Amino acid sequence: MLKNLNPKKTFVVVISKSGETTETKAALMVTEEWLKKAVGKHYGRQILAVTDPAGGSLRSRVEIEHKKDSASFRSLPLLKGVGGRFSELNMGLLHLAVIGVDIREVFAGAKDMLTRCSHAELFKNPAYLYAALHTILYRKKSKSLAVLMPFSETLKSTADWYIQLLAESLGKKYHRKVTVDSEGLENWVNDKDHLFGLGRTPIAARGTNDLHSIQQNNVEGENNKVITFIRVEKFNHEIKVPGKNDILSEKKFSELIMLAQEATEWALASANRPSCAVIMPEVSAYNWGALLFFFEMATAFEGELLNVNAFDQPGVEGYKNYMYCKLNKPGVSASVAEAIKNKPLIKNPKYIL
Amino acid sequence: MLKNLNPKKTFVVVISKSGETTETKAALMVTEEWLKKAVGKHYGRQILAVTDPAGGSLRSRVEIEHKKDSASFRSLPLLKGVGGRFSELNMGLLHLAVIGVDIREVFAGAKDMLTRCSHAELFKNPAYLYAALHTILYRKKSKSLAVLMPFSETLKSTADWYIQLLAESLGKKYHRKVTVDSEGLENWVNDKDHLFGLGRTPIAARGTNDLHSIQQNNVEGENNKVITFIRVEKFNHEIKVPGKNDILSEKKFSELIMLAQEATEWALASANRPSCAVIMPEVSAYNWGALLFFFEMATAFEGELLNVNAFDQPGVEGYKNYMYCKLNKPGVSASVAEAIKNKPLIKNPKYIL
Repeated sequence: MLKNLNPKKTFVVVISKSGETTETKAALMVTEEWLKKAVGKHYGRQILAVTDPAGGSLRSRVEIEHKKDSASFRSLPLLKGVGGRFSELNMGLLHLAVIGVDIREVFAGAKDMLTRCSHAELFKNPAYLYAALHTILYRKKSKSLAVLMPFSETLKSTADWYIQLLAESLGKKYHRKVTVDSEGLENWVNDKDHLFGLGRTPIAARGTNDLHSIQQNNVEGENNKVITFIRVEKFNHEIKVPGKNDILSEKKFSELIMLAQEATEWALASANRPSCAVIMPEVSAYNWGALLFFFEMATAFEGELLNVNAFDQPGVEGYKNYMYCKLNKPGVSASVAEAIKNKPLIKNPKYIL
Repeated sequence: MLKNLNPKKTFVVVISKSGETTETKAALMVTEEWLKKAVGKHYGRQILAVTDPAGGSLRSRVEIEHKKDSASFRSLPLLKGVGGRFSELNMGLLHLAVIGVDIREVFAGAKDMLTRCSHAELFKNPAYLYAALHTILYRKKSKSLAVLMPFSETLKSTADWYIQLLAESLGKKYHRKVTVDSEGLENWVNDKDHLFGLGRTPIAARGTNDLHSIQQNNVEGENNKVITFIRVEKFNHEIKVPGKNDILSEKKFSELIMLAQEATEWALASANRPSCAVIMPEVSAYNWGALLFFFEMATAFEGELLNVNAFDQPGVEGYKNYMYCKLNKPGVSASVAEAIKNKPLIKNPKYIL
């Protein structure tokens, strides 16, 4: 990517809470070198850091650079206590603003969805109802896979985001233990006496492409999935099939795509497989904000119904610790180093075959 | 895409066995119109059709156009009886040749893998062993999810291809019934008396990106997965982290990526989760041909071990029939039309909430 960019015309945004994420840090180091070579010592003026407001190595770096040159390494604070998967409406807004999306509209959509998803009545609260139905299907009917299938190219990466949202929020080892302190504030800890070790596994798919790959398995394979379609009723770009003498002639692509979605729903129902559809009038900033917030709320409700902490991700520490240990990073605890030493990987397994 | 292409400099390849696949057909109709407008009546000289050697609507079209102008709608035959997912070493070679891949090398890799995977001894046959171990983990240990995770950007779409390979080959409703005719030839039919309704569900992931989304669930969530890593030992492009004073300084990106793969393997093993690694010395045409053929053979072996027909995909007919029926396509059987009429979708479900 750097080979195709002009460093004199490139502005860099680096986002990391701690500044320690290996990929982000390595990429920043390479990018800094690349900028420096082309624009000289003031290259830091082309960098914006989004990071913890007070702590961490990236924040320290910002402070050092600021002292030298106040226009260098400008920064924005990352909201504390919000995991990456819940950050689309926090630091994610920056990207959206840069590419010209009206972030006020995104926020308005999220806000209205918050109102709808705050209703105490199950049947008036879409996120609560979504969570409740999926939890019943999971715990009572063994539907352990959540397939999210937007019929829209624009929403493809939204499905990828959903993978992180569901996988990190609900795939938990322990149940949650809630205690309330003298001031009435809740304190959540992992209840080491109560194993959970569950959580629905998400799969991202997209219509119509993936009908040509996963539909066979969805219809005839293991009946362990709930498909959630996202159906878009009006497309921003419309194409019409030309000609007059074919069954497809004069059909709009959007019509064909919606028909394919309906057909998939019908085929699943005919095979007694559950599905549901989220219907978006069109992919607008407002609707997209609402959609994201809907899934965030639904996932939070699922966490409550399953009694797990939907907001932490302790399971990702394992591989990070291993990496830090092998990289001789200061501060790796002795117990972690010991565990790695006692349970090494089999050497050269590649020569088994 | 058409907006960004020059029709006078564009050559179009259309691939469809029957010529009836809705997406391909609609896209061809639109593309023909676009070409015709710009280059006039000889636009067909910029089209190559890869289709059934004798039947189908695209073959008929080729024959009609050929009669009018022998340089128009040139064609190549699609090998009969080979499903799309097994076609990478058939019509897939065309794409590879066009982008400059040495397809002889791809074939050489596949051929050598065929030799290795034809060995009768389990422990000398990588595809058979892969299939046997995964089948045991599936049927005896409930590992119903197959996560394929290449640690290589280049192999990202190979993982997407694997989704189709596994999902369509093994997600089957019925067991297979094999009969042998008087000449010793096998005849396979779906054994309607013996339900299968199983098959591992594949998930495509990629290192290191998806460690930030699925690793939490893989380590702490439901223990129903086997992760297959693809580890590449030598990268075609190498980047080194600059500087001297950081733990990442002077590390190659490939080292860090391999370390992340190793760390993920270790974290899974520490949590008693199974994984395996396919190790590629580098992503070359030869190795890639071998890799694809390995997975094709392994999937065929899995079909044998599960006693299903790994080569058909009857389950995709449902949604196609529904679409064809709604599009008033001639030839939709009365029984299909009846089934659709008797089991309509609920109208306007969107207003439930």
